[in-house]
Amino acid sequence: MTQRNWSVPETEVVQRIRDRLDAGGTDVLATIVDVDGNAYRRPGAKMLLDEGGAGVGSITAGCLEDELVKVGARVRERGRPELVTYDLMEDDDEDVWGLGVGCNGVIEVLLEPLSETYRPAVEAFSEGRDVGVLTVLDGGDSAFEQGDRAYYHPERDALRTPDGDDAADWPAGLAGPAGELAADGKADTVTVDHDGTEIEVFIDGLAAPADLVVFGTGHDVGPVTEFAAKNDFRVTVVGFRGAVDLDERFPAADRIVTTSPATVPDDLDLDDRTYAVVMTHNFVDDQLTVESLLDAGVPYVGLMGPRERFEEMREAFDETYTESQLASLYTPVGLDLGGGSPYQIAHSIVGEALAVSNGREPRHLKEREGPIHERVDVESDAPAQ
Amino acid sequence: MTQRNWSVPETEVVQRIRDRLDAGGTDVLATIVDVDGNAYRRPGAKMLLDEGGAGVGSITAGCLEDELVKVGARVRERGRPELVTYDLMEDDDEDVWGLGVGCNGVIEVLLEPLSETYRPAVEAFSEGRDVGVLTVLDGGDSAFEQGDRAYYHPERDALRTPDGDDAADWPAGLAGPAGELAADGKADTVTVDHDGTEIEVFIDGLAAPADLVVFGTGHDVGPVTEFAAKNDFRVTVVGFRGAVDLDERFPAADRIVTTSPATVPDDLDLDDRTYAVVMTHNFVDDQLTVESLLDAGVPYVGLMGPRERFEEMREAFDETYTESQLASLYTPVGLDLGGGSPYQIAHSIVGEALAVSNGREPRHLKEREGPIHERVDVESDAPAQ
Repeated sequence: MTQRNWSVPETEVVQRIRDRLDAGGTDVLATIVDVDGNAYRRPGAKMLLDEGGAGVGSITAGCLEDELVKVGARVRERGRPELVTYDLMEDDDEDVWGLGVGCNGVIEVLLEPLSETYRPAVEAFSEGRDVGVLTVLDGGDSAFEQGDRAYYHPERDALRTPDGDDAADWPAGLAGPAGELAADGKADTVTVDHDGTEIEVFIDGLAAPADLVVFGTGHDVGPVTEFAAKNDFRVTVVGFRGAVDLDERFPAADRIVTTSPATVPDDLDLDDRTYAVVMTHNFVDDQLTVESLLDAGVPYVGLMGPRERFEEMREAFDETYTESQLASLYTPVGLDLGGGSPYQIAHSIVGEALAVSNGREPRHLKEREGPIHERVDVESDAPAQ
Repeated sequence: MTQRNWSVPETEVVQRIRDRLDAGGTDVLATIVDVDGNAYRRPGAKMLLDEGGAGVGSITAGCLEDELVKVGARVRERGRPELVTYDLMEDDDEDVWGLGVGCNGVIEVLLEPLSETYRPAVEAFSEGRDVGVLTVLDGGDSAFEQGDRAYYHPERDALRTPDGDDAADWPAGLAGPAGELAADGKADTVTVDHDGTEIEVFIDGLAAPADLVVFGTGHDVGPVTEFAAKNDFRVTVVGFRGAVDLDERFPAADRIVTTSPATVPDDLDLDDRTYAVVMTHNFVDDQLTVESLLDAGVPYVGLMGPRERFEEMREAFDETYTESQLASLYTPVGLDLGGGSPYQIAHSIVGEALAVSNGREPRHLKEREGPIHERVDVESDAPAQ
């Protein structure tokens, strides 16, 4: 049976794309570029299909994957992209049963031969940089062709070709929406005027994964690393005092750092995408680490331990930190899910980090007003250059 | 290196105990019987230590495990239980550094040679029945000895010996608190008068795992089964219309059932410990399944799909079901954590099922008033018989 790992963390999809680029495989990359109605995945969801029909990633919950394998084979053979639209709206027509009635929404998918033009995307992702991937969906009468690609690099605030040159022939007006989408990690299609012709460009804001940094090496750390990795955090385990065998003990971690509480700021890049969980079970280590994290202004510091334990720390903190700094400190760490096993505690911790990283207030979705997925709201008609 | 899987789901600990009983191993079972202050685990947390010092389960986050391996070796050698107390309260004394300063609380642990007297506990667990495991901690001047064991079976509302006979010599007053603890899945130590002597008995309410039943066979089902199993649900995947290869596709599931929407109530035991997630992505299947689940009065029905989709179903439901019946229906399914990948969606679903199964309102623990762990509140001095 062909191996099809449709449901994998996004980080694994990107890693697989990188591996296949390195291997020079003739794979096909499928990306949702538009959704009308409610679908399981949003624009930017990807799957990679290899020659044998195997692949990783998912675009629907299984409604379309078999169909896409067929189209993928054609794209591979012809060596050029295809844009296909699937209408999965509710329908009583028995004939479409096989396509999975009940997969709501109209989904537009771009399938393209995976090529070196995609390498800057996976490199940025691996290096922890956000990037906007621009792909022409419709070049109209212009010189642009479907599949043409450019990049928006936030640190340069400009468009670049896949080779890193100035993308001088690309409409400069794309930089604005690309910057917004890259910052938000969202994707959308924009229409711009180019020398009097409208061209349609899909902009995929590929956000680098957030860092989940776990301070501690107890047996309770393993489940946190496992769940965090599955939820697309880049996971770092930090051990103090020459803790050993950490690679072996925490295989789900992307990175192991051994340091001391005093040198945490030197040995770790703490920034606004650092989500920290402090669970050293040592009062002094916990306190010093929390101080370093608050000093660095990271958006989330989850501190394990009972409320009473923190009250002792709090006296020192209240003098040093403002209320708004302390707002990023979550203790007792985790969501109130009621479980007491190591995995249940880890589930509640990772769930909390996820909610904070997405700016959500944890509660039942049924109690949330409005759509589950945030709608993308960028200037869809960028100014003509 | 010796394999030590301290952090494993509770269900795996019980399974391991069963395996070791079957193998006739000379293992030692360690159980937290009392906690004073705040500790990582609660009374009833278990670990099993085999001859080589390997084992499964965790009692602390690593503060005591090495120490317990040593005591375990002694218990194995002498062939009789030991009750040990560890004071892990915050302490500035550098000398106790090695024992893990910061592991709060005073923990009392019973270590006993694993014997056939424990088999009824693992059998009840595997068969989905709650049970109260009674173990004498201190027999005083009575004929009871430390480690003596009896069981409380809720379906009989009486104490039985491990062999299944009437536990006629055990204080009948233990049945009351044992019933409460077994129903709540909590553990506590009670002191009872027995022929004029006080005896101390640890009652471990061993709750059978709750069932998480997933209706659907899409690619989005796999991550739900994985997270649910790690969180100690007994996981069933239900496929319709002769879905194939389900065992292979969902290895984390404990059970696969193939049926049709109309025969769901016949083919599944739906009761007050059934947590159901409906994600067939087929409107009619979803509706019929939700109806069966509401009819059966299960405590949690999570329905995947957008709110708009449910509004259509709701019209039919509003006529058939009362508001209180519909209160167990959660749609859109999941907690509002903001993630959109298959694993992130699964994390939000399993987190919701966990919260509902524990009667918790999902929110940050730092916003919850009172202790994180519910205190056990049973009559600690059972009436003399």
